[in-house]
Amino acid sequence: MVRILGIDPGLRFTGWGVITAQGNRLSHVADGVIATDSALSVPERLRHLHDALLELTRNFAPDEAAVEETYVNRNGAATLKLGYARGVGLLVPMLLDIPVAEYGAKTVKRAVVGTGAATKEQVSMMVRRILPTALLRRADAADALAVAICHAHHRASAAHIANATRMA
Amino acid sequence: MVRILGIDPGLRFTGWGVITAQGNRLSHVADGVIATDSALSVPERLRHLHDALLELTRNFAPDEAAVEETYVNRNGAATLKLGYARGVGLLVPMLLDIPVAEYGAKTVKRAVVGTGAATKEQVSMMVRRILPTALLRRADAADALAVAICHAHHRASAAHIANATRMA
Repeated sequence: MVRILGIDPGLRFTGWGVITAQGNRLSHVADGVIATDSALSVPERLRHLHDALLELTRNFAPDEAAVEETYVNRNGAATLKLGYARGVGLLVPMLLDIPVAEYGAKTVKRAVVGTGAATKEQVSMMVRRILPTALLRRADAADALAVAICHAHHRASAAHIANATRMA
Repeated sequence: MVRILGIDPGLRFTGWGVITAQGNRLSHVADGVIATDSALSVPERLRHLHDALLELTRNFAPDEAAVEETYVNRNGAATLKLGYARGVGLLVPMLLDIPVAEYGAKTVKRAVVGTGAATKEQVSMMVRRILPTALLRRADAADALAVAICHAHHRASAAHIANATRMA
């Protein structure tokens, strides 16, 4: 059994979700959102995100982490700020020696819904179906669980391929 | 006397420089570059940057830090990666409770050279003149010292204004 932490980073809201995977069987452990106060300075908000993410990663002790490569379609300043939060999201699991995988948005949608063109609502609905006990207080938490589910599928396929290769 | 750490963050090369300021008198303490191995994964490179920046910040124990708001004129993916490194650059001093100021590229150039339209070479040359003992092994170190110099000027003006207001 492997325990996976999914992270959907953002400076205002960072979604997170923990699942366990045993073969194809996925179970929900916890999910939530880290919100930072927009009245604080950017460095203070990054420290809040770092501290909260570090604490929950320690608490839930995942074996592996997965972060969504957020789609970039906004202006440079917004992209840069998103980068700050993603940088912290990629950094924190590594500080605890937990390997971090990255998945593009289309790969996540394909893994969860079956098509890379799925809407946010379809992703949320499928996450609810796969993990009925998820809280999903905000869409960010659903996105975080979605990237965790995506990682569970991909690592299972990778293990399957590795086993097949060993047997061949 | 105040000790200032300047940081010019980048995923490949992060310049850093430490100066002391006593009124208008500036002195060079140290400068250098943190390089991360492009063969490593992005999360591993961010951890390397975090660890190196945390160690030197602890060693040089600055009172304040300053980071340049890098000019964004490249593609979204490059901007996002720059954001990761800047996120870590803004985060690390805060982890040690050191206040972090941010300055735009034009503000830094104006403070060091006298014009916001200065070239990289002019900035380097003026940094050398102001801090003759700087090593400046790479331009990134000069940019880091430049933002530290900029912060020294701005905090001196702010103090001057505060004093003048108190006296009025």
